Amino acid sequence: MDQRIREHAKIISMHSTSIEKGDNVVIDANPIADDLVTALCEICAERGANPLVIRGRTGTRFLRAYLNNSKGEFQIPTHELALFEKMDVYIVIRGGGNISEMSDVDQKIMNEHSLVRKPIRDERLSKRWCLTQFPAPENAQKANMSTEEYENFVWDAIIRDWDVQKNHQERLLKLLEKGDEIRIVSGSGTDIKMNIGGMIPINDYGNHNLPGGEVFTAPVIDSVDGEVTFDIPLTYKGQEIEEAYLKFEDGIVTDYSAVKNGGVLGEILSADRGAKSVGELGIGMNRGISQFTNNILFDEKMGDTIHIAVGMAYADTVGEGKRKNESSVHVDMITDMSKDSYIELDGELIQVDGCFVFEEGFRLK
Amino acid sequence: MDQRIREHAKIISMHSTSIEKGDNVVIDANPIADDLVTALCEICAERGANPLVIRGRTGTRFLRAYLNNSKGEFQIPTHELALFEKMDVYIVIRGGGNISEMSDVDQKIMNEHSLVRKPIRDERLSKRWCLTQFPAPENAQKANMSTEEYENFVWDAIIRDWDVQKNHQERLLKLLEKGDEIRIVSGSGTDIKMNIGGMIPINDYGNHNLPGGEVFTAPVIDSVDGEVTFDIPLTYKGQEIEEAYLKFEDGIVTDYSAVKNGGVLGEILSADRGAKSVGELGIGMNRGISQFTNNILFDEKMGDTIHIAVGMAYADTVGEGKRKNESSVHVDMITDMSKDSYIELDGELIQVDGCFVFEEGFRLK
Repeated sequence: MDQRIREHAKIISMHSTSIEKGDNVVIDANPIADDLVTALCEICAERGANPLVIRGRTGTRFLRAYLNNSKGEFQIPTHELALFEKMDVYIVIRGGGNISEMSDVDQKIMNEHSLVRKPIRDERLSKRWCLTQFPAPENAQKANMSTEEYENFVWDAIIRDWDVQKNHQERLLKLLEKGDEIRIVSGSGTDIKMNIGGMIPINDYGNHNLPGGEVFTAPVIDSVDGEVTFDIPLTYKGQEIEEAYLKFEDGIVTDYSAVKNGGVLGEILSADRGAKSVGELGIGMNRGISQFTNNILFDEKMGDTIHIAVGMAYADTVGEGKRKNESSVHVDMITDMSKDSYIELDGELIQVDGCFVFEEGFRLK
Repeated sequence: MDQRIREHAKIISMHSTSIEKGDNVVIDANPIADDLVTALCEICAERGANPLVIRGRTGTRFLRAYLNNSKGEFQIPTHELALFEKMDVYIVIRGGGNISEMSDVDQKIMNEHSLVRKPIRDERLSKRWCLTQFPAPENAQKANMSTEEYENFVWDAIIRDWDVQKNHQERLLKLLEKGDEIRIVSGSGTDIKMNIGGMIPINDYGNHNLPGGEVFTAPVIDSVDGEVTFDIPLTYKGQEIEEAYLKFEDGIVTDYSAVKNGGVLGEILSADRGAKSVGELGIGMNRGISQFTNNILFDEKMGDTIHIAVGMAYADTVGEGKRKNESSVHVDMITDMSKDSYIELDGELIQVDGCFVFEEGFRLK
């Protein structure tokens, strides 16, 4: 076994999820990640925790077979719900499988299925959880990289000093905690503002997403106003959407388009009422991630980017007395901020062309 | 996908477990069986059932890693128990993995782990369940067959007319239901008797084990007397035991030996109190299984054999008012009855050299 796999398992189980004696753990992975799952089982044993391995991930042949043969009447699987209710730690390992496996599944069926399973997602998110990546050849291919190069990319991004990253991000967090209106401008396609006053910014230093490397929060739902062009392509359930464009008025999408797969974007937005509003604003700060790899788990953490998710807001980002955006979907979309871009907080510049006000080299425009 | 895989899935889901609308299904399989799992997910969808795929099978790298790093203090995993409590149908697919994966795990640790997990096994056995085999190369190798030859062997044994088999076995069942003392004699090493009066013989025609093909029951625990030599080798958690010999007095093993791995046999027998008594007597009747393949699921069903299991008795074989043998183990061992052998029921011959009294060619010795 590659020793980096045991390092990866240590970070998941110690840094991200703090596995302890007596913990009921669920590990959700494809077979390509068997080495990593094995290493996690070793650690569970050492710590007196109980691992169960499932193959529940979106994008498998099993789910496609199920959805494409269903009659569209979904029920909540109460045995799966019971499993997650009694679970303490949830570890999802992405990697492997055919990334386009869901490409011939009807988007509406997927949305209906996703909607019915919301209580399961809520249960998972209420526990200690970690979402990480195994460097499978399929994912290397998607990133246009050789498998070995991709292994280096993934483990370099994951096996690092998360305390240093945490402290770096803490400086932005402190600014956002005191701020109210945030405005994001990039090129000619993006000028959007939203209020984050009273909401809770979160420092993501690998405690849930691994790699981590962002600060994120939820906006006040109806405060989102303006337009945004996401110049980084996103892959939604196997389909690539390019140059997605959204226009918001009073917190709701009033216009949208895309250069490729605009129809898929439309289906996401019409999943339910909450799918047309913003659930998350994130600012990528992980400069250890040096290139886009067509993988949101890495792309959204990349330094000099921001991302906005339509759909569900994370409960821990919503301040007391504020409304939480509810939806069956949560789809992140990314904009590059490295050129011709800036972020203002209450009228003050806090980032210019990717460089923060608290970093060396920061210059007013 | 080989069309026999869809036939296999149909027999599992329709004949063996009768999957219906709303059923919560758990499928436990190794990745080699992905095609079969996919076919089962298709059928679950068609029938409105909810499949969840897990990798909980004994003999995986995960379980080895867990057991070899544990400190020997096991708890019942309450999340897994909750899953099975809410489950309606349990499908276990053997096949794949390294059959010798558990060969360097301490037998005592395995027994302790198995003991703690007894409530989980009880829960599974209280539901509709099916144990079947996928023809993986690893299993073909164990059977000294090519993969293609083994595929033919497995699917020939499974894809057949189970109604015809049921009726054939029903004739033995009727005899056993009226009988009391059964005596089994083979060569010089086997002469054992036990009472089955008041116990319940079961016709196994592929409703739990797939392939099926046996009639089995439990004896009155303390009635087992005599000695038996199991001339077919058995593999217990990766270790092959050859020529196991057991001597019973008043239902308890008082002497044992084996030509190979006698120590493993001893550890099985000392797992707990019930491990020294008989939990099952089975008579193999599936003449579709034409050769031994070092796989108990097939070997015990082969025509012209009997098998005796030490350990746990199945609840549905134990008559009202009779004591059920309880144990954390259940280990089947097989004796060839095709030569120099006979079975008596209350002093009357019912089988000679594998041929039953109700079959053509039956001859008194």
